Amino acid sequence: MDFNGQYNGYFERFEKKLSEILASLNTSAPALITDAMRYSVAGGGKRIRPVLCLSAADMLSADIEKACTYAVAVELIHSYSLVHDDLPAMDNDDYRRGKFSTHKKFGEAVGILAGDALLNFAFEVCLGQENLTDCDFAAMKILAESAGYSGMIAGQVLDLQYEKKDAGEKELYEIYSNKTAKLITVPLLIASALCSRAYYEQLERVGYHLGIMFQIVDDLLDVSGDLATLGKTPHKDEKEDKLTSVKVFGKTGAVKNAKFHYESALEILKKIPGSTFLCELANKIYGRNS
Amino acid sequence: MDFNGQYNGYFERFEKKLSEILASLNTSAPALITDAMRYSVAGGGKRIRPVLCLSAADMLSADIEKACTYAVAVELIHSYSLVHDDLPAMDNDDYRRGKFSTHKKFGEAVGILAGDALLNFAFEVCLGQENLTDCDFAAMKILAESAGYSGMIAGQVLDLQYEKKDAGEKELYEIYSNKTAKLITVPLLIASALCSRAYYEQLERVGYHLGIMFQIVDDLLDVSGDLATLGKTPHKDEKEDKLTSVKVFGKTGAVKNAKFHYESALEILKKIPGSTFLCELANKIYGRNS
Repeated sequence: MDFNGQYNGYFERFEKKLSEILASLNTSAPALITDAMRYSVAGGGKRIRPVLCLSAADMLSADIEKACTYAVAVELIHSYSLVHDDLPAMDNDDYRRGKFSTHKKFGEAVGILAGDALLNFAFEVCLGQENLTDCDFAAMKILAESAGYSGMIAGQVLDLQYEKKDAGEKELYEIYSNKTAKLITVPLLIASALCSRAYYEQLERVGYHLGIMFQIVDDLLDVSGDLATLGKTPHKDEKEDKLTSVKVFGKTGAVKNAKFHYESALEILKKIPGSTFLCELANKIYGRNS
Repeated sequence: MDFNGQYNGYFERFEKKLSEILASLNTSAPALITDAMRYSVAGGGKRIRPVLCLSAADMLSADIEKACTYAVAVELIHSYSLVHDDLPAMDNDDYRRGKFSTHKKFGEAVGILAGDALLNFAFEVCLGQENLTDCDFAAMKILAESAGYSGMIAGQVLDLQYEKKDAGEKELYEIYSNKTAKLITVPLLIASALCSRAYYEQLERVGYHLGIMFQIVDDLLDVSGDLATLGKTPHKDEKEDKLTSVKVFGKTGAVKNAKFHYESALEILKKIPGSTFLCELANKIYGRNS
């Protein structure tokens, strides 16, 4: 099967699982919160993290159905982080994935609560599985640690702290390796955890490089993109004087850096048997325009 | 040992465990987030949920050390809910436990992130235990479901929805049974889950009644209390036209209602062997003035 066919296969499989899980939300809960949760997770995203999880699971011959559940959990956490990130007190963004951000659509209080609910629900989904094993504990532990105060949230805090500050490469990497790379690495590590940690260290490094590269490409798109293509407000980083790769390295330097991390990821990936799809996926992330 | 001695014993044991866990926070994480997390959890609280957990575990002869870990997780979730509840877009409260609320002290963005971090950390703490068993899965599942969109968060959403609305007893119970009672019930159910679900249904009902009673007493204190005694701004419910037991039943009616739920909890508790401490604790919660 060609790359696009395989990508769509993972994508559809994930969307089906996500729909099932969202459809199973308790109907006795207030519609306002379940609507806001569904709105925040549904539609528009490229589902890169889920596709990373399913394709890595496939590559390692892990239980795909189980990987699918964790892919949903990762995407729930990714979505909550966007919902809270868009809040007025944070990045204050009215648009996300080409539509109103959650707080803009449902109000700020519901935006806060929907984010909380999505984060919490990620663990409900993991813990709702039957016959949990030690592999599940390992997977959940990776998820929790990567998303927490010393992972993704650390990155967001640093992102705020270095706004309008004169900081350099060291600080930039500190932000990116946490804010973005942690949640790009998680799906790969979970796939590995479901297979007795096969290629764990390698996949950890792959995720790091892919994550940094992903964020640099994001920075470059922010500089050159428009709302219609991006689905979110462009030129925001510049306006808010965020510490970005473009600010630190200049546009040409950022392009060079993205290339370095793409090639670093590729070099490690190529040594893992069956990694053709992941190599091509890395290439697509590298060359994306939205 | 007398009641106070026993209460202090549980309290100290919990504080020691909490301190250990907070002291173990990764020092490579940004100090801003770990400071905000510690600030939000530390000091002032009566630790009713942890004491419920430890005393129930004691009563059922559950593993107290394990119960202590879950007590920390419950308190982390309770604390995050207060941090987010105090945000300007939510209840907008500048004081909590006699000091500035987290967003007032650290800024709104850090308030949001600290809340997120505490919720996430609750699961990190649970999953960080060694040799996890099926009982642990059950305990974590109870925690996640009780705190989530169909538990505590549902209550908070309803609380917002019924603000300034003409609603009655049914809606009030819908809010209180979720917003407050779920996280009062959780410590009891976790203790039970650690002992093959001993007295599970009874403790679920006890938690429900204690939780409703706890919230009604809170309402009565809001009407009559002052900042110094309460540690939080009084008369807020009235000002914001919240749906409270005092609004629905009047002050006398609310007192009567609290009594009913106290007695209901007591009746069930008395039938569980070794429940003397929990019965007295219920009495203290009923008679508290802060």
